[in-house]
Amino acid sequence: MLETFDLSVRISSESYDAIIDDLRVKLNELQRQIQKQQRAVLIIIEGRRGSGISPLVNKLYQALDPRGVRVIAVGEPRDVERAHSLMWRYWNQLPASGVIAIFDRSWYSRAIAEQYNAKEMDSFPDGPLHAAVDFETQLAADGYLVIKFFLEISEKEQEKRIREKHWDVFAPGTKGGAERREKNSLPGYHEGTALFEKMFMRTDLASSPWSILVAEQIKYAEVQALKSIISSIELWLQRQRSFQETYLIHKAEEEQPPSVLLESTVLGNLDPDVPMDRSVYKEEMKRWQKKLADLQIAFYKARIQVFVVFEGWDAAGKGGCIVRLTSLLNPRGYVVEPVAAPNIVENRYHYLWRFYKMFPENGHMTVFDRSWYGRVLVERVEGFCREDEWKRAYYEINQMESLLYGNNAVIVKFWLHIDQDEQLRRFEARQADSKKQWKITDEDWRNREKWGQYLSAVDDMIHRTSTPHALWTIVPANNKYYARVYTIKVICEAIEARLQAHKKEDRYKKK
Amino acid sequence: MLETFDLSVRISSESYDAIIDDLRVKLNELQRQIQKQQRAVLIIIEGRRGSGISPLVNKLYQALDPRGVRVIAVGEPRDVERAHSLMWRYWNQLPASGVIAIFDRSWYSRAIAEQYNAKEMDSFPDGPLHAAVDFETQLAADGYLVIKFFLEISEKEQEKRIREKHWDVFAPGTKGGAERREKNSLPGYHEGTALFEKMFMRTDLASSPWSILVAEQIKYAEVQALKSIISSIELWLQRQRSFQETYLIHKAEEEQPPSVLLESTVLGNLDPDVPMDRSVYKEEMKRWQKKLADLQIAFYKARIQVFVVFEGWDAAGKGGCIVRLTSLLNPRGYVVEPVAAPNIVENRYHYLWRFYKMFPENGHMTVFDRSWYGRVLVERVEGFCREDEWKRAYYEINQMESLLYGNNAVIVKFWLHIDQDEQLRRFEARQADSKKQWKITDEDWRNREKWGQYLSAVDDMIHRTSTPHALWTIVPANNKYYARVYTIKVICEAIEARLQAHKKEDRYKKK
Repeated sequence: MLETFDLSVRISSESYDAIIDDLRVKLNELQRQIQKQQRAVLIIIEGRRGSGISPLVNKLYQALDPRGVRVIAVGEPRDVERAHSLMWRYWNQLPASGVIAIFDRSWYSRAIAEQYNAKEMDSFPDGPLHAAVDFETQLAADGYLVIKFFLEISEKEQEKRIREKHWDVFAPGTKGGAERREKNSLPGYHEGTALFEKMFMRTDLASSPWSILVAEQIKYAEVQALKSIISSIELWLQRQRSFQETYLIHKAEEEQPPSVLLESTVLGNLDPDVPMDRSVYKEEMKRWQKKLADLQIAFYKARIQVFVVFEGWDAAGKGGCIVRLTSLLNPRGYVVEPVAAPNIVENRYHYLWRFYKMFPENGHMTVFDRSWYGRVLVERVEGFCREDEWKRAYYEINQMESLLYGNNAVIVKFWLHIDQDEQLRRFEARQADSKKQWKITDEDWRNREKWGQYLSAVDDMIHRTSTPHALWTIVPANNKYYARVYTIKVICEAIEARLQAHKKEDRYKKK
Repeated sequence: MLETFDLSVRISSESYDAIIDDLRVKLNELQRQIQKQQRAVLIIIEGRRGSGISPLVNKLYQALDPRGVRVIAVGEPRDVERAHSLMWRYWNQLPASGVIAIFDRSWYSRAIAEQYNAKEMDSFPDGPLHAAVDFETQLAADGYLVIKFFLEISEKEQEKRIREKHWDVFAPGTKGGAERREKNSLPGYHEGTALFEKMFMRTDLASSPWSILVAEQIKYAEVQALKSIISSIELWLQRQRSFQETYLIHKAEEEQPPSVLLESTVLGNLDPDVPMDRSVYKEEMKRWQKKLADLQIAFYKARIQVFVVFEGWDAAGKGGCIVRLTSLLNPRGYVVEPVAAPNIVENRYHYLWRFYKMFPENGHMTVFDRSWYGRVLVERVEGFCREDEWKRAYYEINQMESLLYGNNAVIVKFWLHIDQDEQLRRFEARQADSKKQWKITDEDWRNREKWGQYLSAVDDMIHRTSTPHALWTIVPANNKYYARVYTIKVICEAIEARLQAHKKEDRYKKK
């Protein structure tokens, strides 16, 4: 692919001057449309060493209205970034709606560096390029535009630039020395060609294709980049609009679904009543709490991330379970994240973005009191998102959890199941107790009326997202004692299983 | 202070069981009031090694409604934190309104560690305890409550606990080894007593006093902590309410200020017209842009943070100056931050909080297109904040800038001055040009009518916040060429002066 390009093309100063201002004005107009339509764009600038990535980034940065642009300089991961899964840092840096993010290098430079240093490859069995494809696909599905450029120069020009310039003094978060590191972590010219070709082949997606920019002359690259960005954005805004229109027409014509609900296949067969005596409870609770406290030290040392997700009916006892399971833990190693509706700022991002901010570091545990599954539960039932959005979410969630698992995570997911009679008893008890009245709201009563719709949603969720590395556990929760002990036990067993797997791997490696 | 405590006090299991639930319920009620009144609380738990800080933090964490609580575990600074000024990380972790933040160790442990390792002291000439006092004072002034506990145990108990437990396995962001580090960075028992006494003496503030908790028995400490937290919060909520009432009465009775405005002493004497030819401009511009690009590498290597603040009349040409000054810079080393009104999430914090998120790392530059000075300009003139708030802001800003300067910063602040005729010409030109119409809004015309009020505000601002380490430069800006060249020149000179000072220091150190 790279070798088919004519690197001798150039633009004259006169031609450049004649068109550059118009291109910038055009881009500025598009930027305002992006803001108006509340969309976001990622522009990735990759290329060979010395190909002028930073100068081109600066040209684009300057061409854009600063209120709607972010430059993201990708270098070696920070310590916080190393303590999370591979793509975590990019999720965190996702542009909000109305913003164009320009990436000065990206996950691709990291992927190349990691591919090149085979040592690091071990820890990413799925491969960083695979992760890149997943990431871009998820963004595209959510209406983001991802534009990818690769700057190509000749070997001669590369040698010249590296000799002349201090173009790689800058690398975020390092005390200089970037040049030395990059020399070691980036391949030479011809070796590079092979790696880049592989990268193009595997990541040239329909929704985010690669464009090669000839960068022997920076002005030429700038003009080509601007033209390409403008046409990509125009096409994409057009598509967004026609999607909206099609969707609205489709919605209006759609027949209402039949109001008869199917029997629940998952929850229908489960008896939510499992008895447990107070004396047994006290003893078992002490035992498993102690066990989990010991395991906390073990998974901290093994750098395992633990995700515990609590979903369930209102008043099913999620909070009570969470207080018990954390009561002997060290607060430096866990966090409880109560998840409510997204706020106005969070709504400007992909719906998974805010959860990435809550994810535990290696060795830590996050307990989610409700979670990203809200997308396929409350948001589906209440119509807070479109149908295509929640339908897509099953796949998106499985993909995310699979990547987390690959990064050494334990993922335990609970659905706390009580029956309608038990819920009514608990609602009434709360209302009768002046200390607990604040816990019950009109919304709880409204949700209760939609029991059937939630039942279908829970069924679908459990069928579609119970994967081998992130199983759902349905917890009979009419008896609080049983539910509290059982959840801690399941967590302990899941952590132990992962620790065992670790030990086996270690033994295998030693052989 | 420490030696006057009777460490043998204890609570019986019966007494504990009898009161603990009531204390928790009471605290929960207060938590809901905090949410309603949109205030925030910081609870600092400090203490000797092995005094049970984490277990107590966990007790408090569990006692509170998880929707309104955050645990912040303070350990060694992360690389990002090291790349900023001393208190940056705590500003970043400030609780939003409605939230209680529980600090498992805090800036005090860091201060003690740094005090103990004299090596690190050099870089904080003002002293970390001084910085702590400033920080807490600023929070108190803004209506935050800061509660500070110190857990005291006997030497015998300390030895026993350190022998028995793995209580210090956890330290955020480290691969274990915390115990070893803490042993080196924290003083022994008696040496500690001396340091802690010094800490109490210097930081026992009226608004945030120290409470010593006897922690030989964790239940006793928990009960004392809960009682103390409850009474502190009650008193503080009471004060907040009476402040609001007093303020409203005072406001209602207040006489309207006379509408005659004094002559501006700062801007009044300045001729905004300084001519510059296009040919001189082109030459000078090239020279200073090149100079700044060279200096960028120098200040990156010297780890100097550069803050450039642009304030000025609407249409004074801030954006044009910024584009010119950044045009040859490496985008990996600078950011332009356009500052608009705070959004709904930002409004839940101290007004300076959002700026901390924009501050450059060591070696980087941030260019602010408007800034924290909005507090004493637009917010004052438009009444977006209370009078006591903007009056307090001068001191708060000076304090902040002084700490930044102490952390190796260059702070350059511009007021771009044009006269009213020139502004009118530019407004009309914008309105006439279809490509620029979007730049001019009704708000701009409204602001123009308040020219006189802004003049007073600018006067006050420049008088009160032009400090030796963060001077204001008033830029005659009727001629755009002159303003653009002059601002880059001032920035270059300020950076060079700081680099020179560095070299002198280095020479001095070598002697």
